[in-house]
Amino acid sequence: MSHPRTAVIGAGISGLTSGKMLNDYGVEYTCYETSDRVGGNWAFGNPNGHSSAYRSLHIDTSKHRLSFKDFPMPESYPDFPHHTQIKAYLDDYADAFDIRRHIEFENGVEHADPRPGGGWTLRLHSGETREVDLLVVANGHHWDPRTAEFPGEFTGESFHSHHYIDPETPLHLKDKRILVVGIGNSAADISVELSSKSLRNEVTLSTRSSAWIVPKYTYGLPADKYYVTTPYLPLKWQRWAAQKMQFMTGSNPELYGLPKPNHKFFEAHPTQSIELPLRLGSGDITPKVNISRLDGSAVHFEDGTSAEFDVIIYATGYNITFPFFDHDVISAPENHLRLFKRMFLTDPARRDAVFMGFAQSTPTLFPFVEAQARLMAAYAIGRYALPTPAAMEQAIDDDQARYTGHMLDRPRHTQQLDYFIYEHDLRAKELPAGLRRAGTLVS
Amino acid sequence: MSHPRTAVIGAGISGLTSGKMLNDYGVEYTCYETSDRVGGNWAFGNPNGHSSAYRSLHIDTSKHRLSFKDFPMPESYPDFPHHTQIKAYLDDYADAFDIRRHIEFENGVEHADPRPGGGWTLRLHSGETREVDLLVVANGHHWDPRTAEFPGEFTGESFHSHHYIDPETPLHLKDKRILVVGIGNSAADISVELSSKSLRNEVTLSTRSSAWIVPKYTYGLPADKYYVTTPYLPLKWQRWAAQKMQFMTGSNPELYGLPKPNHKFFEAHPTQSIELPLRLGSGDITPKVNISRLDGSAVHFEDGTSAEFDVIIYATGYNITFPFFDHDVISAPENHLRLFKRMFLTDPARRDAVFMGFAQSTPTLFPFVEAQARLMAAYAIGRYALPTPAAMEQAIDDDQARYTGHMLDRPRHTQQLDYFIYEHDLRAKELPAGLRRAGTLVS
Repeated sequence: MSHPRTAVIGAGISGLTSGKMLNDYGVEYTCYETSDRVGGNWAFGNPNGHSSAYRSLHIDTSKHRLSFKDFPMPESYPDFPHHTQIKAYLDDYADAFDIRRHIEFENGVEHADPRPGGGWTLRLHSGETREVDLLVVANGHHWDPRTAEFPGEFTGESFHSHHYIDPETPLHLKDKRILVVGIGNSAADISVELSSKSLRNEVTLSTRSSAWIVPKYTYGLPADKYYVTTPYLPLKWQRWAAQKMQFMTGSNPELYGLPKPNHKFFEAHPTQSIELPLRLGSGDITPKVNISRLDGSAVHFEDGTSAEFDVIIYATGYNITFPFFDHDVISAPENHLRLFKRMFLTDPARRDAVFMGFAQSTPTLFPFVEAQARLMAAYAIGRYALPTPAAMEQAIDDDQARYTGHMLDRPRHTQQLDYFIYEHDLRAKELPAGLRRAGTLVS
Repeated sequence: MSHPRTAVIGAGISGLTSGKMLNDYGVEYTCYETSDRVGGNWAFGNPNGHSSAYRSLHIDTSKHRLSFKDFPMPESYPDFPHHTQIKAYLDDYADAFDIRRHIEFENGVEHADPRPGGGWTLRLHSGETREVDLLVVANGHHWDPRTAEFPGEFTGESFHSHHYIDPETPLHLKDKRILVVGIGNSAADISVELSSKSLRNEVTLSTRSSAWIVPKYTYGLPADKYYVTTPYLPLKWQRWAAQKMQFMTGSNPELYGLPKPNHKFFEAHPTQSIELPLRLGSGDITPKVNISRLDGSAVHFEDGTSAEFDVIIYATGYNITFPFFDHDVISAPENHLRLFKRMFLTDPARRDAVFMGFAQSTPTLFPFVEAQARLMAAYAIGRYALPTPAAMEQAIDDDQARYTGHMLDRPRHTQQLDYFIYEHDLRAKELPAGLRRAGTLVS
């Protein structure tokens, strides 16, 4: 039995998990990584420029929820590890499962060209080319800054949160009037850090969509311990129940002067911050609605107010970008990318690519990628077979309705899914179904 | 009817409230203040050295609970105002009630000598002397640093939290190994501020007594809104009920690696911090038990561990000090000062002094001082009369048993009381009783 010649693009979480699982299934592969190190986003200061980590970043998922199922985090780790600890954990993971020897460092995929009849020709940064049968796309989706467009022009300094390191980098942010745009975790963390009284900044937070703000701790336990969904009840019902209990969480941003969210509680990835409500309630951060217009050093807001700023930080999220694919081959306009189980294109001619980690999985990412890796490796060795294109299209529509149908169609939310439901769906339904289709399930 | 010649020492919260009430009752008085401004502790950088406020300090009581009953805080204030806002509020208070014209600024009381037969001779900083019949002692109890004594010697830098301003003052605290001693609000705030990753410090928090850590927000409302005690049930029962609900608050410090408190929940003033549990749970602050010994740059702890530090910050509280009294006249050794209703000495010869604000009132201080000021002014004009010394001694014992009898006898806790119980006791019981004794209650 011959296995496909396989390449993995990227040695971040998704690439490492893919590599580990390909090892387990005995598939020979090479992982191409532009950087000199593993870890991707979690390699702070990654020379490949693809890390969005700031110096103070701690993971927003507790270590219990975050751990790979087959590689628990060290007992000594705190509930919410720092990025340096996540990086060390990924290094240990790579060593424990002997993944590094498959990685070509500082040799990323420059271009991936489909070959007639299937498979890919890869042009590497080294100038070499490689031919592969299966391409595992694991280049991440938190590295290409998505900027917000507003009428007018701002004459102060501005940058995207992707480039934020600390109050001294990339700009010396002290005694400044700062506007942070957005209300994801980066916006919350950055505005909290910059509003520290010792920096003497004036910090304003502007949001269009607003967001529910949940604490990292509830009753003294990591709050994500309370996040449990079951595959045996409709997700819609579970959302409804969570909405009824919302008042228990203090998560309503209107309590702290922020706009009313454009979605119900639990309908979109909430922002996790204990400190943001405190800073808003202490007057250290001024909440604002969306920007209507820029005008020199002034920013006008949709509520008719305006204020002067020295710096704008756009914490407005990321684009899903595949710099190695020609646009007409594979691209994700407005972050829309129709993928069966967030992994496979439906085009029968494009079954030579598997996508790994392209989702916003609540409440945890690492075990989600692990679940995907199991299916991917089974697919690579032919134990798992995909359904018909029509069935895949139908499944995509059904999953979208389940995970994101209730929310606004915004680039931020296109990839959202519920980990518990997804994992159960993959393990208990899709994998056995695919084994049956491949004729490899004996029962 | 002639009123006593009256002096007020200090123009902080207690002095201002006293002045306002003396104005209301038509008592002529002079307030002596060492500083050039009102506000005492809340006048950040107060030239008299008596402010312990740091740059980032926000009040830990919400504005709703904190407001004077007769002078609400501005609607525009955030839930937890910054010290600059408290100062502005006190300035407005002084102006609204025309208190300033009674204050001699930069002219504190150097020495207060009892006169034979009652009353005081005051020697002022200006060199002048004044004779008064009634002395209102309102010089505060959060300005004279209490240091902790440990065996051995520490060769790094160390200072008391009283002198902490921000990460650059009084020391440049960056890239340092810092030990914060104590677990009151100052210890929590300072260790949180210094553990900001952008400062690259390593922060350790050592505590002897440990403390329950309650959030500033619960269910999205200022947590002190939920703190309500009733005078119609024994405080002991109410403490018991609160202890049963403790698990709802996430306040157990053991959840975050801190030692088990030496007291039950609600038995002592809790520490209010949303951020301290987060920082402990993120590994940014290392929790430690009490210090056993200092040795050069090393600190040994009671659990047998030790570590090296560059700086020790003692956030170990304050002494009750009266620099203007001779020790044998009035002093508070180990912060013990037997005061009837925390206001009057029992010695019949010392009824010419009233103490204002000498309590740790939970959950609020300003209305507590207001309640005291009402009694004080009624006493000044003779409408209220004190009971017998024996009755006062008995009341002190009863009140101590009620407020602090359940807790360890520590300098930190000698002054603790429950605002709601105290205010009701003063207004509904003690004031009418004293009016009856003075024969001024017509009913």
